[in-house]
Amino acid sequence: MEFGKFSLEEYKKKAREFHGTLAPGMLIGGYMVSRAWKELPEEGFFDVIAESSHCLPDAVQLLTPCSIGNGWLKIEHTGRFAIAFFNKETGEGVRVFLDSEKIKAWDEINTWFFKLKPKMEQDSEKLFSQIIEAGESLLSVQKVRVEDRFLEKKKKGGANGICPSCKEAYPLKDGDTCLACQGKLKYTLI
Amino acid sequence: MEFGKFSLEEYKKKAREFHGTLAPGMLIGGYMVSRAWKELPEEGFFDVIAESSHCLPDAVQLLTPCSIGNGWLKIEHTGRFAIAFFNKETGEGVRVFLDSEKIKAWDEINTWFFKLKPKMEQDSEKLFSQIIEAGESLLSVQKVRVEDRFLEKKKKGGANGICPSCKEAYPLKDGDTCLACQGKLKYTLI
Repeated sequence: MEFGKFSLEEYKKKAREFHGTLAPGMLIGGYMVSRAWKELPEEGFFDVIAESSHCLPDAVQLLTPCSIGNGWLKIEHTGRFAIAFFNKETGEGVRVFLDSEKIKAWDEINTWFFKLKPKMEQDSEKLFSQIIEAGESLLSVQKVRVEDRFLEKKKKGGANGICPSCKEAYPLKDGDTCLACQGKLKYTLI
Repeated sequence: MEFGKFSLEEYKKKAREFHGTLAPGMLIGGYMVSRAWKELPEEGFFDVIAESSHCLPDAVQLLTPCSIGNGWLKIEHTGRFAIAFFNKETGEGVRVFLDSEKIKAWDEINTWFFKLKPKMEQDSEKLFSQIIEAGESLLSVQKVRVEDRFLEKKKKGGANGICPSCKEAYPLKDGDTCLACQGKLKYTLI
């Protein structure tokens, strides 16, 4: 089993370095990215939507060129454990999700995913060995077209100006003051 | 000049690998993280807020243990080029921002930041050499306390159930159906 250019052991090491621990979601996320790659044409550029901010964005960032900071990875929180790769021109691509029907066959994965026992009572070793044994068989795939809003080439948008309130630079398109001074984010100076 | 455990050359290489290119914002972001570290106590754990999704999250993810997927990096888009490191217990920390007053001394940085010329007419080589020469002198620092909402230990929250609409697992706290089926994210099956 390969995770992009990494072996399982290499991916586990990378995941620990980047994510801090090898969480079960990181390992399943690795299989999800691998599964998606197999469905995509070899040519073309793909953006990714992660439907959860837990673990999945890090698996995507480790295994693909897509990152939060380069804009090719977007997080659209739906609470579902799913990722979608799509072609930016056509909107077409594949969505891979952890299939709750398919995990029923694996008692420890099912217990972990549906939180059927407190974490302390779960068998972590058994959980990881079930995930590795099950691998991509836990997943289902859909061919999808994403909403048009993901196709828009977002320009970084117009000029920056100085916010009259905080005196910092901000995109003038945001209004008369920056979004922070409009109330979105407040700090107390100490 | 060091970027955490990396030299400038190592950081540039890492940035190209992770972000795809060495964008000016990635380089400035590296100096911002380095500057913040110097203000923080050696002991303690810090979360990070990035006020822009452009470049900054990737600089943070490369140079700190904080990532989107492990939850220690949060993006709060205000349009300002700033990051804040804060102690999760007390909410106290430092905020570092690109200071528009300080960049006035560097013509090519000023031109890039305020988009005074089309990108094609900017002098990329001069821009990067000015950024490296200026380094942390482009930045200002504030000691801050963040809003209480960032201190809440967000639990991943309660049980998962099966969405009666899409049949996928979702956090039951989100409502009778998952957020996607409530209209947040729609795919067309193809």
